[in-house]
Amino acid sequence: PKTAVILAAGLGTRMGGRPKGLLKVAGREILYRTMHLLQRNGVKRFVIVTNERYAPLYREFVERHGFNAELVINPEPEKGNGHSLHLAKSHVSGRFVLVMSDHVYNESFVAEAIRGNGLIADREPRWIDVEEATKVKVKDGRVERIGKGLKDWDAVDTGFFVLDDGIFRVTEVLENERNGDYSLSEVVERAKLPVTFVDGLGWTDVDTPEELKRARKMLVFTAVKGTGDGFISRHLNRKISTRISYLLVEKVTPNQMTVVAFALGVLSAFLTLISLPLAGILYQLSSILDGVDGELARAQLRTSRLGGYVDSILDRYVDGTFLALLAYSTLKEPLWYLVALLALLGSVMVSYSTERFKGAFCRDAYREVPALRKLPGKRDERIFLTMLFLLYPMEALVKALFLLLAVLTNIRVALTVWMVGRKKR
Amino acid sequence: PKTAVILAAGLGTRMGGRPKGLLKVAGREILYRTMHLLQRNGVKRFVIVTNERYAPLYREFVERHGFNAELVINPEPEKGNGHSLHLAKSHVSGRFVLVMSDHVYNESFVAEAIRGNGLIADREPRWIDVEEATKVKVKDGRVERIGKGLKDWDAVDTGFFVLDDGIFRVTEVLENERNGDYSLSEVVERAKLPVTFVDGLGWTDVDTPEELKRARKMLVFTAVKGTGDGFISRHLNRKISTRISYLLVEKVTPNQMTVVAFALGVLSAFLTLISLPLAGILYQLSSILDGVDGELARAQLRTSRLGGYVDSILDRYVDGTFLALLAYSTLKEPLWYLVALLALLGSVMVSYSTERFKGAFCRDAYREVPALRKLPGKRDERIFLTMLFLLYPMEALVKALFLLLAVLTNIRVALTVWMVGRKKR
Ligand SMILES: [Mg+2]
Ligand SMILES: [Mg+2]
Repeated sequence: PKTAVILAAGLGTRMGGRPKGLLKVAGREILYRTMHLLQRNGVKRFVIVTNERYAPLYREFVERHGFNAELVINPEPEKGNGHSLHLAKSHVSGRFVLVMSDHVYNESFVAEAIRGNGLIADREPRWIDVEEATKVKVKDGRVERIGKGLKDWDAVDTGFFVLDDGIFRVTEVLENERNGDYSLSEVVERAKLPVTFVDGLGWTDVDTPEELKRARKMLVFTAVKGTGDGFISRHLNRKISTRISYLLVEKVTPNQMTVVAFALGVLSAFLTLISLPLAGILYQLSSILDGVDGELARAQLRTSRLGGYVDSILDRYVDGTFLALLAYSTLKEPLWYLVALLALLGSVMVSYSTERFKGAFCRDAYREVPALRKLPGKRDERIFLTMLFLLYPMEALVKALFLLLAVLTNIRVALTVWMVGRKKR
Repeated sequence: PKTAVILAAGLGTRMGGRPKGLLKVAGREILYRTMHLLQRNGVKRFVIVTNERYAPLYREFVERHGFNAELVINPEPEKGNGHSLHLAKSHVSGRFVLVMSDHVYNESFVAEAIRGNGLIADREPRWIDVEEATKVKVKDGRVERIGKGLKDWDAVDTGFFVLDDGIFRVTEVLENERNGDYSLSEVVERAKLPVTFVDGLGWTDVDTPEELKRARKMLVFTAVKGTGDGFISRHLNRKISTRISYLLVEKVTPNQMTVVAFALGVLSAFLTLISLPLAGILYQLSSILDGVDGELARAQLRTSRLGGYVDSILDRYVDGTFLALLAYSTLKEPLWYLVALLALLGSVMVSYSTERFKGAFCRDAYREVPALRKLPGKRDERIFLTMLFLLYPMEALVKALFLLLAVLTNIRVALTVWMVGRKKR
């Protein structure tokens, strides 16, 4: 669909009279998120049905972000929201998306939902209060009954619809029968809309300040990219970094976080000159924070290629200076320096060999060659290992660490090249 | 154009009776080159006009390579080649490419020529004997006269045409007038074909064994990619590597060359343990050979993303082990090892910072941010510098080298990130 209709006429009573679509979650207006993600999935034009009081606010919002949007005023917002849909009638034709202004959706939800048909329903809603939700009973792939109070139901209404203008034949009938006062649910039930299930993805609605927090949580906790995550990342770092992201997502930008994680990393490298255990612990801490910038960027819809580029180079410098200064502060014999040089080389090459893949094939290495995910030696694992070896400061342990890193990383690179070669020959 | 007509009916007399289109230059049949490059530029279907004797050979060739090609037999190949074109009449419609089977074209020529119209002519032919060539006199953008003996001419006929089926009205007339015996030049002159100039690019024709060598030279010497070349590469390495490529292009594959250059590089690294000057010289030699694999690949039409990927990783390992073993064989103090560690880090990061660009933006860094080309510190320059510092074996010189590399490379990376940031913000 190239057009989307947004229902934003309801007078929010529990949120201080501000239109709910303009409330910010993770630094972005709810409606900015929805419209931005719809655009990214091919929508070119928006029709926003709102009320007289909110219209100037929505107009300012639309202009500020440069959205291609028309405002349609519902002079009787107290009537059921089915009437708001009906008012969009002369502004759309063919297929269109219908979406609620107070629902927060994440990237993967919108990407999936927009390929569906009819009512998009969720059989495993993770981020809503089921008690409060509108439930749907499905029969033969279509809505049989819909309502909050349903006892026997199959899925929950996500507030996201993919319709065509045939729906206005139904609203036309209801306009006459109910004198313009009927809910969207009544339209859906009367139209016996087809149902597409999109299960367990990131969406929620916002009615109270409490639910605003829940939306924030949903956005942050589903913002983990993860394709390049190693064992430690999955089982330790991400559990902490997402909580940190949740605390910071309204206040801190991804770039600020990149700088902080880099500064901590470099600081940990210089700490090797003073205390190995402290250095190791701070290094591991910076590794955890290293995940936060990406999570903030995705939750705030601020991902940028440049951000990823800079972050990735800074990570290499943190690792490089850490190993260089660790060697300098501990080692004496040339032979062990040789080992350290090879460990540093291998350490950078682990990343080089997967990033260079993208350079060559314009595809993500972990997606193209999934077997790579199982190779040990990713950054999170190396840093955790480093921390462990430094907890009890002893030269022999540092030597063992360098030897282990030199072997582990360079074998990993060799295996990477071998796996890529097998796949791409 | 989606179709190409290839004139291959002429009975080669000076090449031992083999059809000239099936002679190999740089490991590929002349016609394979032309058809492969035309396909890469959108041609889907070929019509090869040949004679009865050659037809089985061409049929085998076409089947072996899986080309979508029709053979048309000219039973009277001794007649002028204008008649051969006429025979293609019922096999093409609309726009088509017309090309000679005994002309060798390189990638950039075909890419340019196919976007032209009419006769493609070259005002600065670099790889042919002008004496022997067919010259063209142009007036108002069209062919006025054409022939070998022209005294007053503007450009040389490249044997490459972009025509439409209107040309057959001209051949029809000539068929009657000349009883089927007329040359392509007569058709061109009679039709007053438009002329598109494609000047100074890689093309030549092959009539004698001597000219086969010239074609090989053309392919090798125009096979330099060069976007990432530094000062030493441009002014020294390429001058030697192209000559080596010319000698090897019929015998050696790019992969074999990659392995040889890698082996020499690793050998030079271990030579640091025995003789620094020898190590430096061999390192520089391997740097020269490092250009050969790419040149062979382009000349032989065997470029592969996987080849580039593996080559790039092997280069990093050559540099890494060279610096590591050079440090091990020369340095004693931890402080100088620290410098060596940073030099090794910077050395790999120079490449990482440009390759990671491709990973992030799917574009070549040197093309997107041309200012990057001017930054010193590329691999060819670093290796040449290394050789210079090792010619007179002295610890102080090695230390100076490491310090220089550590500073040069890491500053270069910082500047790279800064320039990329300025461009991509
Ligand atoms: Mg980072
Ligand atoms: Mg190489």
